[in-house]
Amino acid sequence: MTGWLIIAGLGPGAEAMVTPEVSDVLEQATDVVGYIPYVARVAAREGLTLHPSDNRVELDRARAALEMAAAGKRVVVVSSGDPGVFAMASAVFEALEGRTDWQALEIRVLPGITAMLAAAAAAGAPLGHDFCCINLSDNLKPWSVIEDRLRHAARGDFAMAFYNPRSASRPEGFVKALEVLRQECGPDRLITFARAVSTPDQRLVTVSLGEATPEMADMRTVVIVGNSATRRVGRFVYSPRSVG
Amino acid sequence: MTGWLIIAGLGPGAEAMVTPEVSDVLEQATDVVGYIPYVARVAAREGLTLHPSDNRVELDRARAALEMAAAGKRVVVVSSGDPGVFAMASAVFEALEGRTDWQALEIRVLPGITAMLAAAAAAGAPLGHDFCCINLSDNLKPWSVIEDRLRHAARGDFAMAFYNPRSASRPEGFVKALEVLRQECGPDRLITFARAVSTPDQRLVTVSLGEATPEMADMRTVVIVGNSATRRVGRFVYSPRSVG
Repeated sequence: MTGWLIIAGLGPGAEAMVTPEVSDVLEQATDVVGYIPYVARVAAREGLTLHPSDNRVELDRARAALEMAAAGKRVVVVSSGDPGVFAMASAVFEALEGRTDWQALEIRVLPGITAMLAAAAAAGAPLGHDFCCINLSDNLKPWSVIEDRLRHAARGDFAMAFYNPRSASRPEGFVKALEVLRQECGPDRLITFARAVSTPDQRLVTVSLGEATPEMADMRTVVIVGNSATRRVGRFVYSPRSVG
Repeated sequence: MTGWLIIAGLGPGAEAMVTPEVSDVLEQATDVVGYIPYVARVAAREGLTLHPSDNRVELDRARAALEMAAAGKRVVVVSSGDPGVFAMASAVFEALEGRTDWQALEIRVLPGITAMLAAAAAAGAPLGHDFCCINLSDNLKPWSVIEDRLRHAARGDFAMAFYNPRSASRPEGFVKALEVLRQECGPDRLITFARAVSTPDQRLVTVSLGEATPEMADMRTVVIVGNSATRRVGRFVYSPRSVG
């Protein structure tokens, strides 16, 4: 048997947003690897071994998946959303460094509906113009880098989408992010909190930056900040296509 | 019959990347509206009227779709990729301005796999860290705004994805964009040209900014510029998860 490794995106939660090519490789897999809640989305069946693992062990998980593929298994590494956006794809490529044996394997990435696009769709079209996508977690970069990027994004008048806005262990980061955004964008800028989009727990709130409070976000929330032209129409929020 | 309007993303080209929820609404539709090549991707069937229209008539197309939904039709407005990323969703919301009758309709946006995520997946994971998404077309904004955003994106050390990099009628914009990028990022920064991803015409080239030429892009190309840490491993390009 020739092994392979496919890094696949399961989308934000709804089964109706899983692409057919991802469903197809899950049917062909002998092994599925990933963070516990994502592996839980894959149905058990004969001939399939599920390998759920905890958060923050991405590199170990990637190496274990590559070992199995090298041993002839058909391995799918699952991420929620898109595997290339703050998810498992980069970890797998990091694990390939210096391993020409693993680099010779069949390895593919299958995209998925990433959370910010599902959130934007649920809200209207707040990312309908140029935008930035920023991971607010300070696990893998210092706060100074996050702050610098927030200021550049605001000064370039980009809309912004934030992943991992607020961890339970370090909630102060998002407090600071909101302060920076109010300084740069003023109190009237629209901000959308989109929690657990496409699941039964979906909750969508749009307020102004002046009204926003840190508690409106948690780790299941994607936050979208509009650009200077982003506006409401009826129950929707959108960014116009034109500038100037 | 109660009409509705759904703005749906068909993904970058491959049928295997069309989400089940999008396939499902296309089966329920009485009318499909969109740019000619995107409507051509929808199979004809009894009870379905196809309304292909030319490029650059987005607002007229949106109004026509809303008229039909108001008259009781089940209308799907199709975009390639994701309808909320430089596509039809913003045009539909613009058309809702001042029309409280249309605002009362059932209107939904269904996300799709946008071109930059399919391109990133094909290349590896160049968008695996913070990134900006910029439409390089100057149809709807002046060059000065594009240049300013390129400089902010580069100075914030974002990876970047560019849509509509180079039009046949005004190819000089992309020449200038490459000059700005070389000034800001230096000649060694990696740049990926991903043409017609997921279709039989797919072509993927990664070079350094110093080697990049404007002819490497056309209107079917998504261009991805890495951040300062983006690197090659084997045949892949990726952005590491950590900074600093």
